[in-house]
Amino acid sequence: MAKIESSVDTLKNTFRNHAAGVAVITMLDKDDQPVGFTATSMSSLGANPALASFNVASGSSTWPSLCSATWVAIHTLGENNQALAQKMATDHTKRFLDDDWEFGPRGLPIFPGVTSVAIAMIREIHNVENNAVVIVDVIEGLTGVEQRPLIYFQRGYLVG
Amino acid sequence: MAKIESSVDTLKNTFRNHAAGVAVITMLDKDDQPVGFTATSMSSLGANPALASFNVASGSSTWPSLCSATWVAIHTLGENNQALAQKMATDHTKRFLDDDWEFGPRGLPIFPGVTSVAIAMIREIHNVENNAVVIVDVIEGLTGVEQRPLIYFQRGYLVG
Repeated sequence: MAKIESSVDTLKNTFRNHAAGVAVITMLDKDDQPVGFTATSMSSLGANPALASFNVASGSSTWPSLCSATWVAIHTLGENNQALAQKMATDHTKRFLDDDWEFGPRGLPIFPGVTSVAIAMIREIHNVENNAVVIVDVIEGLTGVEQRPLIYFQRGYLVG
Repeated sequence: MAKIESSVDTLKNTFRNHAAGVAVITMLDKDDQPVGFTATSMSSLGANPALASFNVASGSSTWPSLCSATWVAIHTLGENNQALAQKMATDHTKRFLDDDWEFGPRGLPIFPGVTSVAIAMIREIHNVENNAVVIVDVIEGLTGVEQRPLIYFQRGYLVG
């Protein structure tokens, strides 16, 4: 094993070798407009009570809405949802222009073609430098479409 | 999409449909003995500075060591490391009995057969109910063995 001296090169090397499940997290902004983004950091944080966490950059377009929102919808993505993953990770003004979503529980924007939806309440947000860890209570959910899971690896998508 | 009323059933449904990369996180305990565990929640938290996060149950065998440790080694796992992932998730008294590890940077226990190692310093631990979010600064690293990533899905392992 060769030594890597730089912290930035180490981070790149770590996440070049690490795969991640793909989620889309949506909510309403202050004007009740739908906002959301693709997250590859969504993880379980405990079963009793049901908790999950995800990370977000505090410079992201969704950040102001996360700070004001109470509820979020966590969508897990499958092999048929790759275009959704890409759309929710690019131009934020174009994420809800298509006819692929609807208003669901708690008024949240829901993409029905995914593998599952968890409706969750924001419990804590911990700021760390220019990023934040968001901790949520999972409250209720929706079943989705059975399909193989979408995985993010080496800046691209693959199917598990 | 059918409604799921219970928070526990929702959490199960979410993580039944969500894949995760697999990491092994090691450190020294208070007596300088090697300890570690398998984590499926290791995520990037930002590139400048280089930050990562992972979740842990505060009832786990490694928890007291996490609270006293300064340094951790984050190993990303590949297709050849499935037995290591399983060993580091079962009986904690048997995790370092084999001849598959060595002492590395900062005195940390290192498994050389993995895809990468990041040496990181614990920055913050946020307790949430019976669990915690650990935030670390990634400082330096080691290159690993090129192989396809190991993925955890539906209580089993698969290769990306």
